[in-house]
Amino acid sequence: MLSFAKMHGLGNDFMVVDGVSQQIYFTEGQIRKLGDRHRGIGFDQLLLIEAPQQPDVDFHYRIFNADGKEVEQCGNGARCLARFVRQMGLTWKHKIRVSTMKGIMDLQILRNGLVSVDMGVPMLEPEKIPLRYANQETHYQVTVDGISHQFGAVSMGNPHCVLTVDDVKTANVDAIGQALTQHTLFPEGANIGFMQIVERDEIRLRVFERGVGETQACGTGACASAVIGRLQHQMSQKVRVYLPGGHLHIDWPGDGQRLKMMGPAEFVFQGFIEL
Amino acid sequence: MLSFAKMHGLGNDFMVVDGVSQQIYFTEGQIRKLGDRHRGIGFDQLLLIEAPQQPDVDFHYRIFNADGKEVEQCGNGARCLARFVRQMGLTWKHKIRVSTMKGIMDLQILRNGLVSVDMGVPMLEPEKIPLRYANQETHYQVTVDGISHQFGAVSMGNPHCVLTVDDVKTANVDAIGQALTQHTLFPEGANIGFMQIVERDEIRLRVFERGVGETQACGTGACASAVIGRLQHQMSQKVRVYLPGGHLHIDWPGDGQRLKMMGPAEFVFQGFIEL
Repeated sequence: MLSFAKMHGLGNDFMVVDGVSQQIYFTEGQIRKLGDRHRGIGFDQLLLIEAPQQPDVDFHYRIFNADGKEVEQCGNGARCLARFVRQMGLTWKHKIRVSTMKGIMDLQILRNGLVSVDMGVPMLEPEKIPLRYANQETHYQVTVDGISHQFGAVSMGNPHCVLTVDDVKTANVDAIGQALTQHTLFPEGANIGFMQIVERDEIRLRVFERGVGETQACGTGACASAVIGRLQHQMSQKVRVYLPGGHLHIDWPGDGQRLKMMGPAEFVFQGFIEL
Repeated sequence: MLSFAKMHGLGNDFMVVDGVSQQIYFTEGQIRKLGDRHRGIGFDQLLLIEAPQQPDVDFHYRIFNADGKEVEQCGNGARCLARFVRQMGLTWKHKIRVSTMKGIMDLQILRNGLVSVDMGVPMLEPEKIPLRYANQETHYQVTVDGISHQFGAVSMGNPHCVLTVDDVKTANVDAIGQALTQHTLFPEGANIGFMQIVERDEIRLRVFERGVGETQACGTGACASAVIGRLQHQMSQKVRVYLPGGHLHIDWPGDGQRLKMMGPAEFVFQGFIEL
């Protein structure tokens, strides 16, 4: 019997497995079966926590999509992971350092139960996003169906393009998102954010995710919009980002600095399954 | 902590709760929360097993849709219920009698692990289906978009209209289903089945369910199509019905007799949740 927990962060949901106390190896086929929402457990991603593979790290952390493929990063998942290892008694620390395929992540469980994730330094150079533009600017230009749009661009480990709109409710997220996500300006595609600035410390955001479409809560999209808004001198260091699935807090002191994202992680239930 | 199991019958999935050993009352709001596939457990129906409320019955059995409303019947759910009460040690019987909102149901766990459900006597009189036709016939007529269709009609506790097609793959299930499900011929609406007769003992079936659309596996639809095929002298007493989600066995001796449906019920996992 495999023990697991079901958790979610802003509706982005996870099967979380303690691979420290349990010896476990998943095949792609098993993950696809477990990921089926009618005949299995159902999840957006499976998070597998393993013993550390290097010094000064608490855990190694692997992420699998419901199709069985191992992927690099997930901000909502990292928050769930932090609460899981504490709740399951795998650690008593509040500051947790994990290694992933992509590098080291620092997580902190806050007193209010929210989890803070160090998202690293946002990358703004066009060739690092990547964006086909000669020079780094705060406003870039693109024309879609004869209409010119201004946007900001940043990489949070994945490429983001952020447009400012008057009202997220009426923004044409599907049409513009589809036109821009595979635009030749973005050689690796991009996630397209539509942000409405409510106050200097509050925005509303909808994100068209690369390869997926509009989602309930894109964590790296929330980070990207806070960065772009700050570079365009419209936002303060600390920003609340309201997404359709809930809200996140972003703290970014400015260019060259590390960004912190804070948000909720919820336990739903604990389960036991025969593999 | 509430203990539950997640089960499915041909992909039709259930949260199953032992309300005999656990004192439990669900509000509509709680059921809606539990039914959410991202923030809850996720299911088509919640099955609640309670202590018997009358003599010569083993359990009382209640069914709630994911919207929190209590409903009458579910063939796929009844099979899961039978396997659940045995597996959880609530009974050692193989023949189980349960009461529901609608009446008594007899269930039997077979040696091969399949479950047989006594679905009662199919009702063929037009006023009992209900169908707006003066006399009971084996073939009725309806015209949709200028094209005339023949169909059979029967109530399995809910109204069914069954059309014979050459190939279920190419049948226009959506368009014809939508046109017929609320047709004035059916004052309470109807589930619309499209059956392809492969052999006298084997059919393929797709069903457009009333208020839902096409589903993976409609248990009462499988019964209805076996009844109609037999009345139209095209099918034997025992029939295998292949639905998109899997197959069922139907056994119906003929007019005025009780019908038995046999099929699988699968345990997926056991869980514990804080309500």
